[in-house]
Amino acid sequence: MSRVGVIGIGHGKFGRRSDATVQELAFEAFRLAVKDAGIAREEIDASVVAAVPEYHKQRSVAGVVQEYLNLNPAPTWLTEVACASGSAAIRTAWMAIQSGLHKVVAVIGCQKMTELSTGEILALMGRVGEVQWESVFGTTFPGYYAMFATRHMHEFGTTREQLLQVAVKNHFYGAKNKNAMFQKEISLPTALASEAVASPFCVYDCCANADGAACLILADEGRARASGKKVVWLDGVGCASASMSVLRRPNLVGLPSAVEAARQAYKAAGVTARDIKVAEVHDCFTIAEIMAYEDLGFCKKGEGGRFIEEKRSYVGGSVAVNADGGLKAKGHPIGATGVSMAHEIVSQLRGDAGERQVPGADVGLTHNVGGIGQYTFVHVFKRD
Amino acid sequence: MSRVGVIGIGHGKFGRRSDATVQELAFEAFRLAVKDAGIAREEIDASVVAAVPEYHKQRSVAGVVQEYLNLNPAPTWLTEVACASGSAAIRTAWMAIQSGLHKVVAVIGCQKMTELSTGEILALMGRVGEVQWESVFGTTFPGYYAMFATRHMHEFGTTREQLLQVAVKNHFYGAKNKNAMFQKEISLPTALASEAVASPFCVYDCCANADGAACLILADEGRARASGKKVVWLDGVGCASASMSVLRRPNLVGLPSAVEAARQAYKAAGVTARDIKVAEVHDCFTIAEIMAYEDLGFCKKGEGGRFIEEKRSYVGGSVAVNADGGLKAKGHPIGATGVSMAHEIVSQLRGDAGERQVPGADVGLTHNVGGIGQYTFVHVFKRD
Repeated sequence: MSRVGVIGIGHGKFGRRSDATVQELAFEAFRLAVKDAGIAREEIDASVVAAVPEYHKQRSVAGVVQEYLNLNPAPTWLTEVACASGSAAIRTAWMAIQSGLHKVVAVIGCQKMTELSTGEILALMGRVGEVQWESVFGTTFPGYYAMFATRHMHEFGTTREQLLQVAVKNHFYGAKNKNAMFQKEISLPTALASEAVASPFCVYDCCANADGAACLILADEGRARASGKKVVWLDGVGCASASMSVLRRPNLVGLPSAVEAARQAYKAAGVTARDIKVAEVHDCFTIAEIMAYEDLGFCKKGEGGRFIEEKRSYVGGSVAVNADGGLKAKGHPIGATGVSMAHEIVSQLRGDAGERQVPGADVGLTHNVGGIGQYTFVHVFKRD
Repeated sequence: MSRVGVIGIGHGKFGRRSDATVQELAFEAFRLAVKDAGIAREEIDASVVAAVPEYHKQRSVAGVVQEYLNLNPAPTWLTEVACASGSAAIRTAWMAIQSGLHKVVAVIGCQKMTELSTGEILALMGRVGEVQWESVFGTTFPGYYAMFATRHMHEFGTTREQLLQVAVKNHFYGAKNKNAMFQKEISLPTALASEAVASPFCVYDCCANADGAACLILADEGRARASGKKVVWLDGVGCASASMSVLRRPNLVGLPSAVEAARQAYKAAGVTARDIKVAEVHDCFTIAEIMAYEDLGFCKKGEGGRFIEEKRSYVGGSVAVNADGGLKAKGHPIGATGVSMAHEIVSQLRGDAGERQVPGADVGLTHNVGGIGQYTFVHVFKRD
């Protein structure tokens, strides 16, 4: 099978972006990606836009973005799977190219979240859990993941300190990422002393809602090789689903959809967990990153707490995880996140990550979770 | 290139479905499609769900549907392009199969709209137009399409009677469709006497919001041929975009995205407009069907009014259009509509449409518009 290459990447500033509409955020990232790819806009056959529409005043997001990027009359459509929408768009673009329908496809993840109040957002997010039996009782996202944390602590002795060491690491790298929402380091005592959110979580266990956008330009193998640039290949796409309700899962210490998506992606790319030098994982809450270490096979189930405590997920460890600050420090504009993850991996595999560069990074992955694990997308990237 | 075949179809009742959640609606259609295909549920590799999430209390629609259909852990994701979401899902499934990633894919279009009041829906739909410059001034969907009608009447002498003859035709066929929301014929005088909505439209110029679902099972050529059933092939997928604002379009008497999408689909399928025996077109308002005749090449620009007046779009005319009642009589559950259109074309090409059957139907198309034409998807189907 021929390959799909990433030939251009772009990323805007994440944070409270009251200065820009959703289409302006998209343009910031798109402009950089087109410039990076060194192509003419007219060469883009189609775009796939990722966003969760209901957070915006502006609906029909794909249409408004496509026009603002001056891509009419090329085809466009939107993918939505909650916080994994960006990865669904990348998967869709991969298929569009592999099907032979398109040669060059732009993937644009973009999201405005700060038009709504935190209360409105919490209510909307609750509806991403099941409304008939769960959110009606007041379940929120911090509450869902707090159940995972509580159970992980109970079964494996994972500690609050270990959880918050994830936040310390991600802020350490976020401080070095000019696109991150929070560009400041934090200490473990500061994190431990932060305000309670949902036991055992405090503020620093939780990522932040944000506005932002990221863009990838994907091309078929021939066009990618002809670009004369350092191409990064998307060689493994994996995706799996699981029950909406965490109560219908086999356990509360991992995400079965992540395990299955990783299996598919590793197999397709012909790699194993040991080959992964750099990973972007879905740290919407600290426990989510710890479970990701385990679900992706970076360590055994139950050993995730020790994995971060021993700094094995720092640059220089066995696999560098969220070396751009992750959702925690970078911010989590839900439609943009999956594309932002891919941006970082491509940048690392090109050797362009500056002071955050992972030495010898040749294989990397993204792990992007939708909802409470009812969807996970894992994508494996390789450099030439 | 190998082909993608439709091996199963299912359709639920459209209308006010306060008896069913969105996942229950999806199941009604899915169950029929799986039975029709004669396959085991386990053979379904993936699903693509079409819905516009913000009309539902339940968000993360793909996740809740995937679980309810017992398709976990197979991949699933959602496509959204306003009223064309169902066709974007079909296009995505076509790509998934042609890319070699999947062999059998279920496409599920499903929508609950009646959980909201008409006022809430009108406000949400306004946001599908551009919020910065248009919906803020109160533009609604009937208002947008009323501008097209006014201009078409001005330029070509199209009459209110011709517009409403579209409604008379579609109610004539809707009366024969057990899944239609309005199963009653109407007369032209009744239609002309109905209450004003947005000049020149009255009630019978407008389709109705509805709840409902439809499902297709697509398979690769090998699997489709092995089914031993009458396979209908999706041989041409076309999609184009246009500016959000109708004011930035070259004219107000047609949709440039429809013309371009049709060009692509005809070319891919190796057919012309004259080969089309049966078509499902996006009659969200009467003028939209008249413009579709012209944009698809069934008649020249400006002749659409006479085309319906001469009953050339009835069964037995030059091309049967909306022989299932169309959006007008069948109802328009926006996420389901594109899939419902494909259901009808497959049924016609199989020769299974009963008293609505178009004699000799061998090539058919669907024409599905998102928003005010910022997206159009045209799909050409052929029987063996």
